[in-house]
Amino acid sequence: MLNKITIIGSGSWATALVKIFSESQIWTEWLVRDAETAQYIRLNSRNPRYLSHALLNMEMVDPTPNAREALKDTELVIFAVPSAYLSATVKNIDKELLEDKRLAVSIKGFIPSTGSVPSQFLNKCLLHDSPITVIGGPCHAEEIADNKSTYLTVGGDDENLNGEILSGLSTPYLKVIINNDPSGIEYTAILKNIIGIATGIAHGLNYGDNFQAVLVSNAMRETNNFLAKVHPAKRDLFDSAYFGDLLVTAYSEHSRNRTLGRLVGRGIHISKAIQMMTMIAEGFNASKELNGLLKKLGITLPVLTSVYRILHHHANPYQEFKLLEKQLC
Amino acid sequence: MLNKITIIGSGSWATALVKIFSESQIWTEWLVRDAETAQYIRLNSRNPRYLSHALLNMEMVDPTPNAREALKDTELVIFAVPSAYLSATVKNIDKELLEDKRLAVSIKGFIPSTGSVPSQFLNKCLLHDSPITVIGGPCHAEEIADNKSTYLTVGGDDENLNGEILSGLSTPYLKVIINNDPSGIEYTAILKNIIGIATGIAHGLNYGDNFQAVLVSNAMRETNNFLAKVHPAKRDLFDSAYFGDLLVTAYSEHSRNRTLGRLVGRGIHISKAIQMMTMIAEGFNASKELNGLLKKLGITLPVLTSVYRILHHHANPYQEFKLLEKQLC
Repeated sequence: MLNKITIIGSGSWATALVKIFSESQIWTEWLVRDAETAQYIRLNSRNPRYLSHALLNMEMVDPTPNAREALKDTELVIFAVPSAYLSATVKNIDKELLEDKRLAVSIKGFIPSTGSVPSQFLNKCLLHDSPITVIGGPCHAEEIADNKSTYLTVGGDDENLNGEILSGLSTPYLKVIINNDPSGIEYTAILKNIIGIATGIAHGLNYGDNFQAVLVSNAMRETNNFLAKVHPAKRDLFDSAYFGDLLVTAYSEHSRNRTLGRLVGRGIHISKAIQMMTMIAEGFNASKELNGLLKKLGITLPVLTSVYRILHHHANPYQEFKLLEKQLC
Repeated sequence: MLNKITIIGSGSWATALVKIFSESQIWTEWLVRDAETAQYIRLNSRNPRYLSHALLNMEMVDPTPNAREALKDTELVIFAVPSAYLSATVKNIDKELLEDKRLAVSIKGFIPSTGSVPSQFLNKCLLHDSPITVIGGPCHAEEIADNKSTYLTVGGDDENLNGEILSGLSTPYLKVIINNDPSGIEYTAILKNIIGIATGIAHGLNYGDNFQAVLVSNAMRETNNFLAKVHPAKRDLFDSAYFGDLLVTAYSEHSRNRTLGRLVGRGIHISKAIQMMTMIAEGFNASKELNGLLKKLGITLPVLTSVYRILHHHANPYQEFKLLEKQLC
């Protein structure tokens, strides 16, 4: 049973995790970006910037900008920052503070310029030999704030830790599933963000529900093909951590990737569209990293490649999707 | 190349098919329910009751309530009536008029009290030996009316006919795919209507997007398991005729099955909810027929069975979905 954990990150997903663990009566050290944020949270029981409507159980939460304090005697460290910031976040923490600690990640993106998923990156950059646990699943933080019924998956090779995290996540609105496919969960989570951009583009271009359904079912095929190639393993893609996660991003109005895609589909230049977003749409960078990986693997995935061409080669969304239409079946 | 076809049915999907074939310059005999309807269509170029905003190319359409006239010298007869009316529709037509005709169906439901899909039923009841072609795919008629990009699948064993129908369906907004799995398409189309009711119930019960995604991914698994048992065949479920069709009903606001489910989820009694609908939600009867079939096959499908218990055994939707939550993964 976990008594004390540390969550690193100040965004909406980190906030949702803090909410869950603290409601499960686990002492939660929360490493936030600065003293001001920590102070605000302490006084208001809320994150000032993200998921502000979630009221936190401050009897079990200690927000702090001080890594030494946040990591002292902790039993589990969960990284929940945008993938683009993971490298800098790790650099800012004394390596010795993380030594011998059990680590988990809940990040949905490639680490820029590495083609690595977050767990692989942490293993490498911290010279950390133990397996890193992944917390994934179809989960918009907004719905955690509202206590809406949600499924999470804990993927890891350390079965004791899996069980402890499962207990720590057990609040009435959560169902937790365990599997031993951390990288598979991470890769799917990355693809689904790009797929969310694809459905957003289609929406922006005024395609209807008939086409969206074909776009998503073809994107599922691409996900299946990609996983089989990049990380072959026995897995059931119908489990919520895979296609469930994909669907929630492809179809939900909460999805920031879908929002970014919609802006681009309406004709707004990608750089302007990114400026218009208040939160990071992970799919933008993921699309670039993925393209490199697809070339290495030698596989063709039409939906995912179309998004890449639109976002990073300024292909005209209308023309690109007209070409894509012919490749779907 | 088809020159003259007959479409039987006066609903929105029959109207959409008439629109498509007549725009493809194929003479379309349209067997409608009565002289008044035929007259209205002739004068106004629209169906008076369904899909009325679709303007039809009347230079190629002959609406008539007279079966003899509608079937004379026709090269293909397409049945597009609700599944509950197929038996009566066939009984009302002189059998000899259908003799030696090539037949197709575009109906998404079991024939009541038979457990048969429409193509099987027609084969049996007309003592028709030739293969019957199925036209399926993710396709809300409303979007055909608006010329929105749509995919259809022609499933059949008569390759010549498949090709001719493909040509006849070729309008700029349609992409047509051919396969040889008519029954697989029909079974999927039946399941997806029940799944649409399930997502509607969840919506009515105020579940969020996180749960909906898990519900749909689990329903996909159930579809996969059911098809493998009821009609094993080599098929790619990521093709639009399968998961595409499932997704459009599960997620679209156009879906009448989803609408029915939403009413029931909000606490409206099923008989009242059915009265409130202006169109038939095929999933209601399908759910009953499916339950019998599942018992015969000896398989357990939690999502589909929950819908059955709510619709036909008056299980409380809230309690039933609380039980269902525990069975999803």
